[in-house]
Amino acid sequence: MNRFWSRLVHELHPYVPGEQPHVADLVKLNTNESPFGPSRRVLEAIRDATAETLRLYPDPNATALRQSLAAYHGVRPDQVFVGNGSDEVLAHAFVALLKQDEPLLFPDITYGFYPAYCRLFGIHADTVPLDASLRIRIVDYSRPCGAIILPNPNAPTGIALSRAEIAALLDAHPDQPVVVDEAYVDFGAETAIPLIPAYPNLLVVRTMSKSRALAGLRVGYAIGNPGLIEALIRVKDSFNSYPLDRLAQAGAIASLEDEEHFQRQLSMVIDERDRMTEMLTRLGFEVLPSAANFVFTRHPACGGAALAAGLRERRVLVRHFGKPRIADYLRITVGKRSDTDALLTALKAELERASSS
Amino acid sequence: MNRFWSRLVHELHPYVPGEQPHVADLVKLNTNESPFGPSRRVLEAIRDATAETLRLYPDPNATALRQSLAAYHGVRPDQVFVGNGSDEVLAHAFVALLKQDEPLLFPDITYGFYPAYCRLFGIHADTVPLDASLRIRIVDYSRPCGAIILPNPNAPTGIALSRAEIAALLDAHPDQPVVVDEAYVDFGAETAIPLIPAYPNLLVVRTMSKSRALAGLRVGYAIGNPGLIEALIRVKDSFNSYPLDRLAQAGAIASLEDEEHFQRQLSMVIDERDRMTEMLTRLGFEVLPSAANFVFTRHPACGGAALAAGLRERRVLVRHFGKPRIADYLRITVGKRSDTDALLTALKAELERASSS
Repeated sequence: MNRFWSRLVHELHPYVPGEQPHVADLVKLNTNESPFGPSRRVLEAIRDATAETLRLYPDPNATALRQSLAAYHGVRPDQVFVGNGSDEVLAHAFVALLKQDEPLLFPDITYGFYPAYCRLFGIHADTVPLDASLRIRIVDYSRPCGAIILPNPNAPTGIALSRAEIAALLDAHPDQPVVVDEAYVDFGAETAIPLIPAYPNLLVVRTMSKSRALAGLRVGYAIGNPGLIEALIRVKDSFNSYPLDRLAQAGAIASLEDEEHFQRQLSMVIDERDRMTEMLTRLGFEVLPSAANFVFTRHPACGGAALAAGLRERRVLVRHFGKPRIADYLRITVGKRSDTDALLTALKAELERASSS
Repeated sequence: MNRFWSRLVHELHPYVPGEQPHVADLVKLNTNESPFGPSRRVLEAIRDATAETLRLYPDPNATALRQSLAAYHGVRPDQVFVGNGSDEVLAHAFVALLKQDEPLLFPDITYGFYPAYCRLFGIHADTVPLDASLRIRIVDYSRPCGAIILPNPNAPTGIALSRAEIAALLDAHPDQPVVVDEAYVDFGAETAIPLIPAYPNLLVVRTMSKSRALAGLRVGYAIGNPGLIEALIRVKDSFNSYPLDRLAQAGAIASLEDEEHFQRQLSMVIDERDRMTEMLTRLGFEVLPSAANFVFTRHPACGGAALAAGLRERRVLVRHFGKPRIADYLRITVGKRSDTDALLTALKAELERASSS
């Protein structure tokens, strides 16, 4: 508290990101990073861009990157917006599209940044409860609203909607902006991008942090009809002309050019997710069906907070959300095979401790 | 225009940055970049950080960079905030500190982003006219207000206030946040940082884009008392947890570690500014006294718009603002000696064309 703060600052409830430890040799399964590094071509492109030209501003419009993304996704460059991670893209979308006279709808259990944006931008939100199995039900969104945002797959549950369900949501809300946050879509859900020509109200948001193993580079983007993209550009150009530095633009373009690395890495994560799910189930865990690079899971004999703290002692980091309905769960990132093995060893020890106490 | 836009988007007047040309062999004196590259140590640090670890998020608190900045400026890390260029730092300061019940004051002729932020964040601003010689007069700010921001040196005039004048402004406004935007201070003005212990309402904003030749890397920061920094952190953590990527954090730290390169480069820019000022004066230009890496200048025989367009034809880019009071002026970045020579050749030709027509 400070007498120089604006009134708004007092009302904020900032998002708390997962721990980024300053020590090594932890098994880090808490922030949904890829266990595999980015493509070699990304590293080469960044090294090539690390030059005297860093004295010059980057292209404020990220023209080359937008062209690459457009070509990759089969859209036009004026249907692409880029930002400093998908969090910045989402922030601009909240201001530009989701702030309407009627309330914004999103799931009661979802990405924790959405309510933080609402406070920051003065947006009135109504949360829509997930059903008893922690699924989004499209029919529950049939109520008056100004706009809708939901992740697909949802976070932290990992459960995906089908493209047909997204289309049904769009059909039911032709007059409201609908943002689908596809941060994790590459790991097994159907993207809504093919729906864009038919739905001028649809904005799809993506990140290179997860499936492209570039969390450290900060690149996110959105795809939608040009009218929606223009709104994002107007907000961005009222906020920061140059959100993506030269290295991020170069690295992101190179990532799109190595499809083989991308697909190989995805397969490895998906295979390991399946293995981890099976092993957790054998230990008595209930594991929600995940289309993401993490699983959301609980054990009947051991609460989420205690389990997360026990794992932390055993140098395994997972994410626990002390929130209603999901306090029993852990969100565990899919890592390498050796990470899963270390996790399982630690979990077994914790379960034994719990059962013997 | 689009029916899905929030109401706010219709009201925005985005900032228009200077042209970033996609062709080479232009003499680029339009966006106040350094003509010299960054320190070799910066490039090495970035190359070292270009590794498999890009799969991991950066430190959201930029702890190491804030420690380096604190040590460099003789403050504590909790007095330092970092962001994606000083534009993002300024944007957060507008939300966190400058949005008050009473109007925000800034000069009528100043950095063009300030009114853009006001529109975006719904801040009521009163502009305070520069005097007839285009100087900020502190006494003119003696009026009721909620907060004050001004660049020192001012942009696009390049004219600096002394530290004593800043202190007088702070003495006159003990109850209002005062932001001093020191984007260009290293080129010859007195920093207000030593005033921070005495003034809990003072926030100083800096950028690495100009004097550290890192416009392409996007690093800005602010220094002030911890209460002000906390407000910025709260806004940042409601907007984007990770605004600085791993490469930017590494490069920025390395820049602070090469003081010799920094000082040598500054001297070269300052020497060239003095030479350019003398040469322009000889051509009949009136040149405002600059403490920045640009000069603001006009010629009695030739309007600013015509001159800027003529220079563009001759492949020399300068910045012209078609605004009241300054439409006759050009803002010309200080480049290398060869850039100045090319500028002067082009100017001479333009002046001859103007006098013969």
